[in-house]
Amino acid sequence: MDLLNQTLVKIEDLNKKAMKATKERVDNLIKPQRSLGKVEDIAIQLAGITGDVFPNVDNKAIICMAADNGVYEEGVAVAAQSVTNLMTSFISQGITGVGVFAKQAGAKIVVVDVGVIGEVKEKKVINRKIKEGTNNMVIGPAMTREEAIRAIEVGIDIASKEIENGVNLLGTGEMGIGNTTSSTAILSVIGGHDPEDITGVGANLPEEKLIKKIEAIQKAIKVNQPKKNDGIDVVAKVGGFDIAGMAGVMIAGAANKVPVVVDGYISTAAAIIATTIEPKVKDYLICSHASNEKGALAASSLLGFEPMLNLDMRLGEGTGATLMFNIIEAATYMNKMMPTFQETGISVV
Amino acid sequence: MDLLNQTLVKIEDLNKKAMKATKERVDNLIKPQRSLGKVEDIAIQLAGITGDVFPNVDNKAIICMAADNGVYEEGVAVAAQSVTNLMTSFISQGITGVGVFAKQAGAKIVVVDVGVIGEVKEKKVINRKIKEGTNNMVIGPAMTREEAIRAIEVGIDIASKEIENGVNLLGTGEMGIGNTTSSTAILSVIGGHDPEDITGVGANLPEEKLIKKIEAIQKAIKVNQPKKNDGIDVVAKVGGFDIAGMAGVMIAGAANKVPVVVDGYISTAAAIIATTIEPKVKDYLICSHASNEKGALAASSLLGFEPMLNLDMRLGEGTGATLMFNIIEAATYMNKMMPTFQETGISVV
Repeated sequence: MDLLNQTLVKIEDLNKKAMKATKERVDNLIKPQRSLGKVEDIAIQLAGITGDVFPNVDNKAIICMAADNGVYEEGVAVAAQSVTNLMTSFISQGITGVGVFAKQAGAKIVVVDVGVIGEVKEKKVINRKIKEGTNNMVIGPAMTREEAIRAIEVGIDIASKEIENGVNLLGTGEMGIGNTTSSTAILSVIGGHDPEDITGVGANLPEEKLIKKIEAIQKAIKVNQPKKNDGIDVVAKVGGFDIAGMAGVMIAGAANKVPVVVDGYISTAAAIIATTIEPKVKDYLICSHASNEKGALAASSLLGFEPMLNLDMRLGEGTGATLMFNIIEAATYMNKMMPTFQETGISVV
Repeated sequence: MDLLNQTLVKIEDLNKKAMKATKERVDNLIKPQRSLGKVEDIAIQLAGITGDVFPNVDNKAIICMAADNGVYEEGVAVAAQSVTNLMTSFISQGITGVGVFAKQAGAKIVVVDVGVIGEVKEKKVINRKIKEGTNNMVIGPAMTREEAIRAIEVGIDIASKEIENGVNLLGTGEMGIGNTTSSTAILSVIGGHDPEDITGVGANLPEEKLIKKIEAIQKAIKVNQPKKNDGIDVVAKVGGFDIAGMAGVMIAGAANKVPVVVDGYISTAAAIIATTIEPKVKDYLICSHASNEKGALAASSLLGFEPMLNLDMRLGEGTGATLMFNIIEAATYMNKMMPTFQETGISVV
């Protein structure tokens, strides 16, 4: 808890002065005002985050949190539970979706076992296992409050180390069979939704099994009665270690003035937890794609996110965040490399 | 006309065999089926275009067509007309929006003067001027049919040369004060829209001057009576040299089996011309962003395009196409670098 609290108190408001200076510059670059839309917004937000009108985002990393979910035993997923363990190794080898997208974007991937069942064979995976999967949240809390805090602190610790080593653009990713179930439970509690309205098929769950998933979420909420204003309570009772870990990454990004790109549905659930713990975290997050998972729009709306990539993706791992890295880098190129009208010595609009 | 006809007859259907093989592979990569959505669709389309399951798109170029528009004298734009000439030089120097985005994406920019008023100072700009701006389409045809064909052939020639020199991914861009007016006229004619419903503010035209722009488009259509099924007639009567040139780039891409990424509103108008001339061209086009220009949605819908980037941009130049290059490259990385379940020796979904 010490690390979490110490990190939370470090989070400041965005640097308004740098944002104002950047907006003035962007409005005067050789293009019609506002004609680069959200790319301009990103440049201004980056200035607010870093305090620098010309920040670098050239050292990019996806932090991918892997963990299993006890709710799996309710039949909420179609894949074997062992897929979490196997894919965690594959992700760290760079051969999965996020790995090949990261290669294209020039990003590194840091894979963390924060609660995978069984030993993960690939030694590149950082072992920070809280325990081998959460408990089945339908029966009782997925984890204790203390375990939730430890998982968040794993995220803080890993992200802070990456930042110390020079990373200046973070993204979140995850691997965990069953984690659209925990994400939907979080969204139901904090967003006030009926699980029936927002529960989707995750990784191709057959429609006829969807009812089991909805019932599991409904039961988990009824049994655990998570307190919607207490992000730690919610993630402990109906969340997952991966989600808590990603919330920690976001909190560390905010505390260290490094932007964090939020991937899809499960990462957005983590963002909901992080911003419930500390609303200021929101300012340090950049959303990426509109996930094709059913609850994704509701999750994004809850945070006021307007996803910029519409690719019908729903793989997770950090794939959407990685594709977004290029656009964020393009925003810094705009601000750094385009001259203003004044600089070119002309006066046209 | 010879070059245009010779190019049109070279356009074939997509390679169905390569598409089928790619779809089978993509469905078996280590991820839930369809979980990379439109990135998967792009990989399959690229196979159809190139005939190769593992195509390269590593040699990227934006071809930017610059030209002036006679309709400017109707007061349809707020910028000085000389901005076209000035920005054409700047674009070729790589310091404008498309230039800095191209740097991020590792793409080259080829700038072509296909009808700019006055001599363009920057010698990197390829001079293929048809004439110094189109005629005012409110009074008569913007250009003759013969000039339209010559402008299309400029695009074909420039694109074909780039392809000969190794370019394997093309994008379109443009510069031309007044060209949202010609684009809207094209969309009105071929899409059957009332100009009032689809005319937008372009590069920040004050709302009170919008009526002049709408009236200019209405008059141009009334005076010239373009034949909606004849793409050459439409672009000649109410189009521009830039739009005709970009249509030529698209036709050349299709004929040479190279994908062409369509930028925003004006590029989409060129795509409407190209596909009206030869519907098969459509299969070789990849759309990029949803432009913030008013008629953009109608233009995309007419082609069945579903834009993948939602960035509220409306700069043109090829900025949206350039940002899309990264995602298209990521699609090829997916197909090349991710193994199938069979290749990893496991059998999980």
